Formats: sequence, structure tokens, C-alpha cells
Amino acid sequence: MKEKYYIGIDLGGTSIKLGIVDKNGDIVAKYEAPTPHAKYEETIELFVKMIEQTGIEKDQMLGVGIGVPGFVNIEDGSIDELVNVGWKNVHLKNDLEKKVGLPVFVDNDANLAALGEMWKGAGNGLTDLVCITIGTGVGAGVIINEKIYHGKNAMAGEVGHITINPHSEIRCNCGKNGCLETEVSATAMVNFNQRAIEGGKETLLPIEATTKDIFEAAQKGDSLAIEIIDNTANYLGLALSQIATVLAPERIVIGGGVSKAGELLLRPTMQYFKRYSTEKIAEQTEIVLAELENDAGIVGASRLVADQMAK
Amino acid sequence: MKEKYYIGIDLGGTSIKLGIVDKNGDIVAKYEAPTPHAKYEETIELFVKMIEQTGIEKDQMLGVGIGVPGFVNIEDGSIDELVNVGWKNVHLKNDLEKKVGLPVFVDNDANLAALGEMWKGAGNGLTDLVCITIGTGVGAGVIINEKIYHGKNAMAGEVGHITINPHSEIRCNCGKNGCLETEVSATAMVNFNQRAIEGGKETLLPIEATTKDIFEAAQKGDSLAIEIIDNTANYLGLALSQIATVLAPERIVIGGGVSKAGELLLRPTMQYFKRYSTEKIAEQTEIVLAELENDAGIVGASRLVADQMAK
Repeated sequence: MKEKYYIGIDLGGTSIKLGIVDKNGDIVAKYEAPTPHAKYEETIELFVKMIEQTGIEKDQMLGVGIGVPGFVNIEDGSIDELVNVGWKNVHLKNDLEKKVGLPVFVDNDANLAALGEMWKGAGNGLTDLVCITIGTGVGAGVIINEKIYHGKNAMAGEVGHITINPHSEIRCNCGKNGCLETEVSATAMVNFNQRAIEGGKETLLPIEATTKDIFEAAQKGDSLAIEIIDNTANYLGLALSQIATVLAPERIVIGGGVSKAGELLLRPTMQYFKRYSTEKIAEQTEIVLAELENDAGIVGASRLVADQMAK
Repeated sequence: MKEKYYIGIDLGGTSIKLGIVDKNGDIVAKYEAPTPHAKYEETIELFVKMIEQTGIEKDQMLGVGIGVPGFVNIEDGSIDELVNVGWKNVHLKNDLEKKVGLPVFVDNDANLAALGEMWKGAGNGLTDLVCITIGTGVGAGVIINEKIYHGKNAMAGEVGHITINPHSEIRCNCGKNGCLETEVSATAMVNFNQRAIEGGKETLLPIEATTKDIFEAAQKGDSLAIEIIDNTANYLGLALSQIATVLAPERIVIGGGVSKAGELLLRPTMQYFKRYSTEKIAEQTEIVLAELENDAGIVGASRLVADQMAK
């Protein structure tokens, strides 16, 4: 009998990643292409072409899972708007199913990253976890009983918009002040540096410093860089404590670009987490770095297919 | 065929409530007795006596559900400690099953209140909700997919210990500062009043004012009472917003003694909730008062029996 595979697709603002994933969740092959912006039909054709290029026969494919950077109508796999990709009112599931003749399942990218980490990464073997992705913004996937927990209108896990600093004057893209994203994301760190330098703060950092520059400068003892990381760790530790107090997950997994700083971010975050948590929550909640990095979306999208087809 | 019933018991710090509940979740009869403190065996005997006094025959009883004010080891129905009742290291499920010859199921009282509200109260017909109980302290039950979500070591929903005011100097019983309970509970309101009067604040309120006094004084325009309620609504609105942002429940139900203030508390809480929430969460999250009041525990304990026996 021929081996069967899942097709996992991770649609990002800059690139499309596609993986052939076997039934154990292991990636057999990976492909990547730049995202065509504001061109929906062209992107669908590109998905089809990428799937064909894998050289795997149609009868070996179980189905296609796709993670997208935004909200998905979970009931029917349609999408109202993807700002990063330039899509509006598209029926991704239906359109791609027609083109490829396979079942297609769509979900939010942060949810699928969480599912991927649960299946083959830092959450392996667990049933209840929260996976936070810290990049340009902050997203999260909540896994309960081995499944994505969506909440009403699939709004669960929008932790980037927890009001973490009610007295803040920093306005978030969402329109309100003090969102977690305005203190903890890559954007927040870069902006903190800019504001500080414009305000006359002395630092080794250039005004256009990246988060990588900031973590490097902190290791050299730069006081502004240390302050920026301390601010990030403080609000991240507070938010993780609030999340852990509500949900008591077995583990919280931290992924995304900013998490690549590793222990430099994790250590101070854990200190703040413990300060803000009751003893039991502080003791029992494991906080770890993501393991799958850029593959989490592909693996999670494949698991989505497995879960949906088992229904 | 004889009608079958659930026995729902709500063990509180001052009284034991026992209800005969039919298969539709309707209470057929209710009984109440004072809680014997620090006397575990005596309390078990009292449970047995109360069950016998109902006059319902054993073969009409499906099982016994009990809600207790503290942590329960969900796997085996044992309890490490109930401070309010004076129990330590007891095996409630086993001990009561031996005495009554019926299946017994034990859970935390806030969880069962949530389950009760879902079954027959303010959450009727919903699958995902959070029910917050605001009394001396603040507890919550998280219902996901019509079941209690326990989290690791049954610690989910301990929202009274969300660090809601990180800069607070008010110490919580749990040992850390700034817990939701130190700003939003009946205790917090009473203490706020005491501190203000000791600090020389002018008010109509006596130093030993209750929450009822505070709500009444606010209606008469007392500025301290208004300030206390505003503080409560602010931190409650912020916490509900954080919970809704993480979980996106269909509805949040507010119960417990403090919630009896009704619209006086709900209206300003909703205003703060909207201020701290993204537009979508503010629009879609219903926040309502609990409906079952003191019966929520009995009804929820009965539903627990139904759920456990359906497994």
C-alpha cells in the first residue's frame, strides 16, 4: 500500500511554506515561494502548482491544511479579510477544494502553530497548552483536550490585545491603549528604542536598531537595551501569569521571532511570571521555548487535516 | 417506572444546602443545615441523615454531587485541605460512597455554580462560558464544551488571584500583592472604606460599613461610596476583558453576594470592560448577572452527577 501524506501550508505576509507531512507528523519535504500580494486567484494557482510540484500522486494525499495570518470563519473556511496578504471576502476552502480535488481545512496561523508544537514540538504529549507567538505582533493558540479552542467567532487567544498596561499612552493598531502588543512585540521593542533615543537617552544602539541589535547590546551591558528587555519581560511575565491563572495550562510555549533571543528573554520573563503568580501556579506552569520554529505552521496545518478528517 | 433524582449538595463555610433535583435540572425539594466545623466524620453522618430525611427511596437516587469551598483532587475525589470547613486530607468520595451506597462526585463550588448556571440559569443553552462568583473572595468556573474545564491540578479559574494591579501595596491572603480579590471582593470594598475613613475621608458611611451600605450610600451620592464602586468596576471590567480576550466565551456570568447590587455594579463594569477590550470582544461578549443565586451549587452538583455517569 502506498504511503499517505498531509499537505500543510503556512501562508505568511512574505512567503508561502508548503510541507509534505507523513501520518506521524514528520516533514518529508518542504517548499517555499514568495507571497503574491493582493492577488487571490494567483495565490490559489500557486498553491495548486506547489502541490503538483511535490511529485506526490493525488491518491497519496489525504488533504490540505492552510494557516492564514488573520481571522477565519471556522464553520465554512471563508475569510473576511487578510490585511497582510491583501485578501477580502474570499472562500478559500471552497475555491481550493475545487482546484485540487482534496479536502481543504483553514485556520488561523497562531492556532496551527500551537497545534504543531503540541503534535511534534515543545508541547508533545500534552493535552492542554497555550502557545504564544511573539513577532511583529503577539498571537496565541489555545489547545484544550488536544484540539484548538476557538471561542466565540474564533476570537480566543487574541492575547496581543490584552490590556496589560491600562495607564499606557501607546496606542495599538486595534484602537485602544496599553495592549500587550504595544509592550512585548518586536515592534514594541524597536519603538521603545526609538522613543528613548529621541528623548535623549544615551545608548550604543542606533535609532533603527532591530530586536537582534537590542539583545546583543544588552549582553554588552547597554542600559537602554537592558531596560527594553526588562520592560518586555515584565509585561510578558504578567500576561503569562494572567493566562496561567485563568487556564492553568500544562505548559506555555513561546515562539515567534522575538523568542529566538532564548534564555535572554526567558529567564527574566520567568522571574516576573513567578512574582505575579500564586505559588501553585508559579510551581506547576512550565514555560518553554517553541521547538519547531518555521515548521510549526506546516505541521499544525497537517494535524488540522488529521483532526478534521477523524471527525 | 419510578422517577429518578440527583442529590446535589453545596458545602459552605456556614451552611450545607442539599437539593433533590430531577433529570431536567429542576429542584424538587431543598434542605439546609449548619456546617459542623472541623468535624469531618460528623459532617459525613449529617450528609447521610439529610439524604435519608428526603424520604426518597435509594433506588430512585442516581448519585450524589458535592461542591466544596476549595481544591479537590479531581481524579479520586479526595481533598487535601478545606480551610473554611476545617478538613485536612480526607477522602470524601470514598467515605461517602461507603455510607450511602451511591456514586458520589466531588468538585469545587465555583465550578459547580458555573455548571448550574449553564444548565438552568444565566448560561442556559450555551457551551462555553465563564461564571465569576464575587463574595468574600473571587472565584470562577470555566465551562468549555458544556463541561467544567479544570486545567492542570484543577487550578483553572482561580481568577481571584490574577494580578490586576501590579503596583498595589495591598497584600492578598495568597501572599502576593495586587490580586483581583484585593480590589473587587466584598472584603476589598469593606477594607477600602475602612482605610479611607482612617485616612480622614469624609463620608456618610460608618467605618464598619457592609457592601450593602456602600451601594446604598452611592445611590445617595456619597463620594467615597461612589469611589469604591468605581474602583471595583474598573478592576472587574479589566479582569473580565483579559479573560474574554484569552477565552472569547459566549457569555460571562457574574454571581455571588456582591453581584446582588445588580445594575449598580454591572453598568459601570460594562463601561470599563468596553474601554479595555477590542471592538470585536466588546461587541460579542455578553456579561450578565447569575440567575440561580443560592441554588446554583445544588443544580451544578446534580449536573456533575449526570455528566460523570454519562461517561
